[in-house]
Amino acid sequence: MIALRDPIRLIPLLFLAAILVGTILLSLPFATTVGARAPLLTALFTSTSAVAVTGLIVVDTPTYWSGFGQGVILLLFQVGGFGIMTSATLLGLMAGRSFGLRDRMATQVERNRLEKHDALSALKLILGITVVVEGVVAIILTARLMGGYGETPGLALWHGVFHSVSAFNNAGFSSYSDSLMGFQDDPLFLGPIMISIIITALGFPVMQDLRAHGIAWRRWSLHTKITVWGTAALLLFGFVAILAMEWDNPATLGPMGWGSKILNAAFHSVMPRTAGFNSLDVGAFHDETLMTNFFLMFVGGGSAGTAGGIKVTTFFVLFAIVLSEILGRQDSGLFQRRFGREIQRQALTVTVLSATLIFAATTYIASISGLPLDDILFECISAFSTVGLSTGITAKLPAGGLVALIILMFVGRVGTITVATALALGGRDRPYRYPQENPIVG
Amino acid sequence: MIALRDPIRLIPLLFLAAILVGTILLSLPFATTVGARAPLLTALFTSTSAVAVTGLIVVDTPTYWSGFGQGVILLLFQVGGFGIMTSATLLGLMAGRSFGLRDRMATQVERNRLEKHDALSALKLILGITVVVEGVVAIILTARLMGGYGETPGLALWHGVFHSVSAFNNAGFSSYSDSLMGFQDDPLFLGPIMISIIITALGFPVMQDLRAHGIAWRRWSLHTKITVWGTAALLLFGFVAILAMEWDNPATLGPMGWGSKILNAAFHSVMPRTAGFNSLDVGAFHDETLMTNFFLMFVGGGSAGTAGGIKVTTFFVLFAIVLSEILGRQDSGLFQRRFGREIQRQALTVTVLSATLIFAATTYIASISGLPLDDILFECISAFSTVGLSTGITAKLPAGGLVALIILMFVGRVGTITVATALALGGRDRPYRYPQENPIVG
Ligand SMILES: [K+]
Ligand SMILES: [K+]
Repeated sequence: MIALRDPIRLIPLLFLAAILVGTILLSLPFATTVGARAPLLTALFTSTSAVAVTGLIVVDTPTYWSGFGQGVILLLFQVGGFGIMTSATLLGLMAGRSFGLRDRMATQVERNRLEKHDALSALKLILGITVVVEGVVAIILTARLMGGYGETPGLALWHGVFHSVSAFNNAGFSSYSDSLMGFQDDPLFLGPIMISIIITALGFPVMQDLRAHGIAWRRWSLHTKITVWGTAALLLFGFVAILAMEWDNPATLGPMGWGSKILNAAFHSVMPRTAGFNSLDVGAFHDETLMTNFFLMFVGGGSAGTAGGIKVTTFFVLFAIVLSEILGRQDSGLFQRRFGREIQRQALTVTVLSATLIFAATTYIASISGLPLDDILFECISAFSTVGLSTGITAKLPAGGLVALIILMFVGRVGTITVATALALGGRDRPYRYPQENPIVG
Repeated sequence: MIALRDPIRLIPLLFLAAILVGTILLSLPFATTVGARAPLLTALFTSTSAVAVTGLIVVDTPTYWSGFGQGVILLLFQVGGFGIMTSATLLGLMAGRSFGLRDRMATQVERNRLEKHDALSALKLILGITVVVEGVVAIILTARLMGGYGETPGLALWHGVFHSVSAFNNAGFSSYSDSLMGFQDDPLFLGPIMISIIITALGFPVMQDLRAHGIAWRRWSLHTKITVWGTAALLLFGFVAILAMEWDNPATLGPMGWGSKILNAAFHSVMPRTAGFNSLDVGAFHDETLMTNFFLMFVGGGSAGTAGGIKVTTFFVLFAIVLSEILGRQDSGLFQRRFGREIQRQALTVTVLSATLIFAATTYIASISGLPLDDILFECISAFSTVGLSTGITAKLPAGGLVALIILMFVGRVGTITVATALALGGRDRPYRYPQENPIVG
């Protein structure tokens, strides 16, 4: 497995290269509407945010960047999203994480023979899903913008394609200054975007499993079962919590009718799980809603896709361990399967490292800025989990804070793929074992 | 082990009884300086805070409560602290958590024979340490208050005993309105209190091990090694962080000379780990210092003592798991010992349940009050970990918020003892195992 160390090192370099090319392109004078060079940090931040499909912005996308600049951003998050999905899948295949592809493969010979085939079929499937879903959603959005909002065909097509690609890749960038707040009463616009995001945020292994077995859920792999049912549980929880907490908030759901309240609560239960569009003013959310968002953003979406966070499966593996411990059971598992010991440790490690990084970045930004701690924490979780929601402080951050967010976005997006794979690979163990002794805990 | 279920149920009831007796006593008219009955919630909150050795207060201890009232509070945190230490130790012994007492016990027969002896010797040792340490510290503090501050012998003895008992039990109550802010330049007063707290916060099993083996640290149990060196690491980290972060803060360390800066940074590296006195204005801390306090408070002190939090060993077990996972090693451990699988799961469970409870309480209090989220989070961690530090919002909380804190203090103090023991006991397992299957995590 030593050979796999090289791709693990190569992938971060490829993402770094994409970010640098993006930074150069966004630094061209005609990338901005005023025709002057953007400051280096602005270009670097925007490029990183796009490649890492985060969507945090320090300048207003449609008014600051020219058509060329916006086109570059669109290209960057398409390339970034596709790159993340393919590299996570290929690394996963190479590391022997089965992804449901090899369930019925018996021998090592068969497995080796199928690896190349697996990789090719995975790439083809990712490409196919991308083209079909982005195309269909773009057509729907374009039609809606022409029919419902009187946009010219050219403009409607631009906005339609931009939001379709942004939604598919969970990028969170919008070509409207107020993101999707102008569409908060329109299920025909928000609906297709939500559906595209829910599907793509499941991650590639799940999409492949769903394609193979449809809704015959008993035949799904354990990974798919946990991701799909876990996603359903998180969406339901987020929907109920946001609806209840924001019901009377005069700056969000308060003035709306029943239908719009439900639509926007549903939309904002999907968004923190990675997408990052907003139809409501996140800065006006109650503190308890921010807490709910902290949780949903930290958990994120499905593995090996464009969703960020510690991932749905990671969260539910920890949940299952705690549950089995409370029930006094030896084995931890879900859906009548038990988890291997190594996967439990991986889940713990991913969670602890993620929380530590967010904690450190929040402490650092608090020390260099006078901004409220809850806003900073929101921003750091959003960056690490590549969500892209903000209470509105991004542009107010000092340079050091932006650099910290750039690192969070890069590590949160690229680091988690490679770290997860590296953990799955394992390492060279000691040739001896120490005797066992347990401390008292708790 | 079924017989142990009864003490596990009995202990919370005993603590509940102590809290109720305390509430009744504090509700007597002559318990207050004005001679009128305290409101029920005030009496209940104060009684819970004292029995759970937390130290959060809604009214000023020396001006609101009469001499009788303050005597009741003193009695409650002495009873509470002694009760916590003895019940944690006895439960632990009964659950077969060795506490270093039975290291060299070979046979089951010997072990059973020694259990009663263990329990009695543990009780005697706890009582002995309590009397000696409280006595010595009380004498030092009384002498200092007479010599350095001109207090009358009677008053000095009262304040000396009150702070000595409060420090020994990590109770955090002070008989001065400004806690220990009046002593911020006096190492002769803060010093003995710090030393008493550092020792007692190690927990009983460590104190016993230290008594048996002194500083011959190679002969310490693994539990003692992790607790002592972990405590040293946490104190050093807290000291450096607080010194650096508050160095220039005009409301805390800023105006002080070098010596006082160092003294107060050291004092406030000890306090969040459970004691809860303050020599600085916690409400004036920078946000990054609050973040450091979140971490130190959450971790807390040593197991089976008056310290709260998830405990030092719990934190370092998780740390070791993450480290071994990063290094690609099969075994997790520290000090050339590997941890059993069950202890790893217990550490994870204690941490996840604690974080969940704090998260839920913070969200709830945020939803019923307009107070800043970071202050609420600080208050909830402080209550759960029975630290007793506050940014000053305790008295501003609505009734629902106080009830939430009462529950946090009770569960944080009594729940953790019984839950940890229940987890160590295990439960009835299923008579079958499910097949293994791993999801992708991260
Ligand atoms: K995003
Ligand atoms: K305390």
